[in-house]
Amino acid sequence: MVHNGIEYGYMELIAEAYDFLRRGLGLGLRQVEQVFKAWNRSELESYLMDITARILTRTDGKAGEPLIDQILDAARQKGTGKWTSQDAMELQVPTPTIDAAVMMRNLSAYKEARREAAGQLDGPRAELSGSSHGRQIRQLKDALYSGLILTFAQGMDLLRKASQRYGYGLDLAEVARIWRGGCIIRASLLEDIHAAYHGTPGLENLMLHPKLAQELENRQQALRSAAAAALQNGIPFAAFAASVAYFDGYRSTWLPADLIQAQRDYFGSHRYERVDAEGTFHTQWIEH
Amino acid sequence: MVHNGIEYGYMELIAEAYDFLRRGLGLGLRQVEQVFKAWNRSELESYLMDITARILTRTDGKAGEPLIDQILDAARQKGTGKWTSQDAMELQVPTPTIDAAVMMRNLSAYKEARREAAGQLDGPRAELSGSSHGRQIRQLKDALYSGLILTFAQGMDLLRKASQRYGYGLDLAEVARIWRGGCIIRASLLEDIHAAYHGTPGLENLMLHPKLAQELENRQQALRSAAAAALQNGIPFAAFAASVAYFDGYRSTWLPADLIQAQRDYFGSHRYERVDAEGTFHTQWIEH
Repeated sequence: MVHNGIEYGYMELIAEAYDFLRRGLGLGLRQVEQVFKAWNRSELESYLMDITARILTRTDGKAGEPLIDQILDAARQKGTGKWTSQDAMELQVPTPTIDAAVMMRNLSAYKEARREAAGQLDGPRAELSGSSHGRQIRQLKDALYSGLILTFAQGMDLLRKASQRYGYGLDLAEVARIWRGGCIIRASLLEDIHAAYHGTPGLENLMLHPKLAQELENRQQALRSAAAAALQNGIPFAAFAASVAYFDGYRSTWLPADLIQAQRDYFGSHRYERVDAEGTFHTQWIEH
Repeated sequence: MVHNGIEYGYMELIAEAYDFLRRGLGLGLRQVEQVFKAWNRSELESYLMDITARILTRTDGKAGEPLIDQILDAARQKGTGKWTSQDAMELQVPTPTIDAAVMMRNLSAYKEARREAAGQLDGPRAELSGSSHGRQIRQLKDALYSGLILTFAQGMDLLRKASQRYGYGLDLAEVARIWRGGCIIRASLLEDIHAAYHGTPGLENLMLHPKLAQELENRQQALRSAAAAALQNGIPFAAFAASVAYFDGYRSTWLPADLIQAQRDYFGSHRYERVDAEGTFHTQWIEH
């Protein structure tokens, strides 16, 4: 199930990158194919990247039109991604990129509603200007690789927590090795993931392994810039934006959840914990 | 349950705005309180906005230090937000702002992991420069009101779909009227929501009501700019970014889910629908 959750996340990231290249940069299908082919010869080498390039060049019927443009943009699902997100919420494990992928499949299925809304809700023109295409494509590549690492980090964290909770005794290095051997999410990155868990079996989160932390460090500005450009230009970037939030939330010593705890205590006497004392506390918020 | 889901979404949006003001703009607590008080005299008038301003000025103990800074930033939950997101996924209704709120509570509970990660994962300094504070605060206000509309749009859509599926016969105008009367998510906005459903009982989505569409139209650039600034500066903005994705996804006639359908058919023979013909189709993707 978690394999498939990661698969949902990566597929949605690739789909958003494809949208960025087509709607945002205005590339033709052959150009997008060339970009994905080049990426598949890089650290992004993976089964899904490979088949994406192949899909884009497939023609349909006698006229030789691209098949992809005849396929309805409403995604179906068997439920494994949904179960991953639902189960992650049950175990209180953050899996935002996977959640966003499930959500976008559901939103894509609103085809009629979207058609109607498009005539009523205006937005930016979805055309990226500014820096050169070459630079933006390189940024997007780094953003996609960051997103892929962050999606695996979420899935592996869910496996780790599930293994603790249910006593599975999972060996995450072995999981990575098996996935590398052959499955839909097989990717060169799994070599690094295998090495990370093999070298550090108790690793809390993939992001914290020195090599992967460095990969993210090198690419985070590109991830931020690509996501900010998409948001500014009206290109739906749910999975990329969720990946940024995961990274920034995880590396925040302090989060504004102190306010949420205070609100919960204010309206529901749910109590809160303190930074300077053990136990739980309630404040009489309304002063008489 | 859906009331509480909306509550989770709005609380997380407020928390992210609070973070933006404190970490991003460097405002002191008294200044943040003044901002929230002013917002509570505007279209953002709501119970949660009101108590937030009150919470921020509460002092603790003899030294008169702000209580908020003694509260642990790890949010607990009773489960109603989680159930909302899980149920929305079951009914295939996109509720990304609520999902992000649940996720951020879970991430906030990773207090030890975050403390450790902060020393290992570097990022931008979370200090916003560029345009003036006044302008950025006005932008943030518009972003928050947009986020509030979009959160209600998601929750109401879930109620609409659940009512269809389970035959509840819900009157959404009446739901809005009851919530306006008194509850944790009571807000001036509920007047508009009541009027929207009262005037158009079959309204597909709140965003499509002319008045609310106009409110979003007027504020969407501010929402995009605030979210982009947060992403660029390392401030976790999961709920705001998810709100942008909801808006942009919903108003997209075309989404890149055609690629997801093609991938699913490629690796799993799951079939796809076409834009030019009825039925489902399978392609022999690998040519011999």
